[in-house]
Amino acid sequence: MTNTKPMPVIAIHGGAGTLSRSHISPEQEAAYHAALDAILRAGQLLLADGGSALDAVSLAVEMLEDCPLFNAGHGAVFTRDETHELDAAVMDGANLRAGAVAGLSRVRHPVRAARAVMERSEHVFLVGAGAENFARECGLELVSPDYFSTEARREQLRLAQGTNTTVLDHDGAAAMVFKAPAAPLDETRKFGTVGAVALDVHGNLAAATSTGGMTNKRPGRVGDAPLIGAGTYADNRTAAVSCTGTGEMFIRVVAAYDVCARMAYGGQSLQEAVHQLVNESLPAISGQGGLIAVDAKGNLSLSFNSEGMYRGHARVGEEPHTAIFR
Amino acid sequence: MTNTKPMPVIAIHGGAGTLSRSHISPEQEAAYHAALDAILRAGQLLLADGGSALDAVSLAVEMLEDCPLFNAGHGAVFTRDETHELDAAVMDGANLRAGAVAGLSRVRHPVRAARAVMERSEHVFLVGAGAENFARECGLELVSPDYFSTEARREQLRLAQGTNTTVLDHDGAAAMVFKAPAAPLDETRKFGTVGAVALDVHGNLAAATSTGGMTNKRPGRVGDAPLIGAGTYADNRTAAVSCTGTGEMFIRVVAAYDVCARMAYGGQSLQEAVHQLVNESLPAISGQGGLIAVDAKGNLSLSFNSEGMYRGHARVGEEPHTAIFR
Repeated sequence: MTNTKPMPVIAIHGGAGTLSRSHISPEQEAAYHAALDAILRAGQLLLADGGSALDAVSLAVEMLEDCPLFNAGHGAVFTRDETHELDAAVMDGANLRAGAVAGLSRVRHPVRAARAVMERSEHVFLVGAGAENFARECGLELVSPDYFSTEARREQLRLAQGTNTTVLDHDGAAAMVFKAPAAPLDETRKFGTVGAVALDVHGNLAAATSTGGMTNKRPGRVGDAPLIGAGTYADNRTAAVSCTGTGEMFIRVVAAYDVCARMAYGGQSLQEAVHQLVNESLPAISGQGGLIAVDAKGNLSLSFNSEGMYRGHARVGEEPHTAIFR
Repeated sequence: MTNTKPMPVIAIHGGAGTLSRSHISPEQEAAYHAALDAILRAGQLLLADGGSALDAVSLAVEMLEDCPLFNAGHGAVFTRDETHELDAAVMDGANLRAGAVAGLSRVRHPVRAARAVMERSEHVFLVGAGAENFARECGLELVSPDYFSTEARREQLRLAQGTNTTVLDHDGAAAMVFKAPAAPLDETRKFGTVGAVALDVHGNLAAATSTGGMTNKRPGRVGDAPLIGAGTYADNRTAAVSCTGTGEMFIRVVAAYDVCARMAYGGQSLQEAVHQLVNESLPAISGQGGLIAVDAKGNLSLSFNSEGMYRGHARVGEEPHTAIFR
C-alpha cells in the first residue's frame, strides 16, 4: 500500500425521522437539499485548502445552527417552559480532546462554546449557567434568548402541549421559510439534531453535534448529542461519528463510541460496525434514528433505521451529494 | 457447565489517589476500613436475601453519600463559588436502563434522584434545576444546601483558592471526624467519587456512582461520574463498572463502556479489559485513577494506576475484604 494522502471528505446530517404525512412540493424538498448542499460546499472548500477536520466540522455545524430549517441554534425547539436549551459537542480524533456544553440559552453558536471548552478550559463538559458564563468569558457571541425562537416552533410547542406529548421536532421551521406547513420528514416525529464528521488531508478525523433537544421537553433533560461517546466521538484509529435519534436509547448503548469499539476490538469495518449498531443494538431497545460516520481511509456511512435522514457528503474534487429519504 | 446460580457479590470504592504525605495513625486508617466494611456488609446482606444488584448498589452508594469520609452527598467538596454540585448515575445491566443527574444542590441522596430518573421518567439524564425539580416531584428527601457542607471541606476550598488550583479532594472530612488532619490517601490529590457494582443471585449486574466533584471547580463542570459509558456502565452480557479518577480523561476514553466493549467485541476477560484500560489507554492521555468492575460470572477487578483507592468487596457467605493501598 502506498503512503498516499487521504482524500478529504465531510458528511453532515440535519436529523432523522419518518416521512411526512403531508404532501410535499418539489420546492420544499429542494430547499432542504439546497441548504445541505451549501453547507457541504463550505466544508469541502475548507478541506480542499488543507484545513483541518476539526475546523470543517465546526464550520458545518455553525452553519447548520444558523439555518432555521434544522433544530439547533436559530430555529431550535422550545422546552415545556417555552425556553430554549441548546447542547453541543466536538471531538478531535487526533488526540481524543473533546468539549461539550448543555443547557445554553444565550450563546449563538453552541458548537463554538463546546470547542472553547475543549481548547480553553481544563474540562470536557460544562452545563447551564456555568457553561454560559464560560462562553461569555471567552468572548463568544451572545444573543437574546428569543433569537433562537421562531413563531413556527412556538406553534409546535402549543400543539405538543395540547396533546400533552413530548414532540421530537416539528414542521414549524419549514412553515416559516416556505409559508407552508410541510417538510420532507414528518417534523412531529423527527429527531432534531445536526452534526458533521470529517477526514482532512492530514489524516485527522473530527466530529461535532448540536441540538435544540425535544419540543416540550422537561427543562434540564440532556440527550445524547453533547455526551462524548453517546452522540459524538472521534478517534483517528477508528472513526468519527455524529448521531441523531431517540437520545435516551443512544445514551444507553453509548452509540458513537460503540461504532469505534466494534472497529478497534472486533476488527469490524465501518460499514459492519454501523450496520450492527443501527439495525441491531438500537432496535433491540426501540432506538430510532441514525448517524453519520467516516473512518481514517475515507470510508463513509450515513445510516438510519427511520424512514429518512437529512444528510449529505462531499469529497474534495467531487460534487456534493445530498439525500433525505432511503 | 452446570447451570448453577451465581454467587452474589458487591464491590465498592470511595475514590482513588496518591498516598498521604502526612503520618497516618492506625486509628485513622482503621476508620476508613470500618466505614467500607459496614457498607459492604449492608450490601452483602441485601444480596444474601435475594435482593437485586440494582438495590444493592443503590443502598451502598446512599450509605457512601451519607458518610462524611467520602466526597459525595454529606461531606461533598465545594465549588469555587462555595456551593455544592452533586452528580450521580445508576445503570441496570439486565435491560440497559439508566438514570443520571448532575448539578444537584438540595437532594440528600443524589443516587436516588438518578434512580428516579431511570424508573419514573422517560429520560436518562437530567441536570440542574430541572433535575432538582424532578426529584422534588418524586418526593425525594430534600435538605438545605449547607447540609452537604463541613467546615473541613470549606478549609479545603480556602486552601485551593489560596494556591489558585483546582483540588480534586482534601483531608477535611477526616479532620472533622478524627480531629486530625490526616487521611490514608493525600486528599489534596485524590479523586473524590464513590461507587458500587454488584452481581445478584438472579445473574443481574448493576452499577452506581456518585460524586461531589472537584474542590474549587468551575460551577457547571460535569465529570465522568454521571455520564453513562464514561463513569458508569452495566450490561449483563459483559460487566458492571464504576470509575473514579481524573474525570475528563475517563470521559475521553469512555472508560466504563470501554471495559464492556473490550469484552464484547475483543473477547477479552474482565481482568484483561480492565488492565488495558487502566494501565494503557488512560495513562496514554495522563488519566489517573481506577475503577471497580464485576462480570456475570462474579469475577472482580478493583484496579487503579494511582497509589491507592479506597475499596472493598464482599461475596455472600464470605467475609468482606477492604483495602486502601496497593
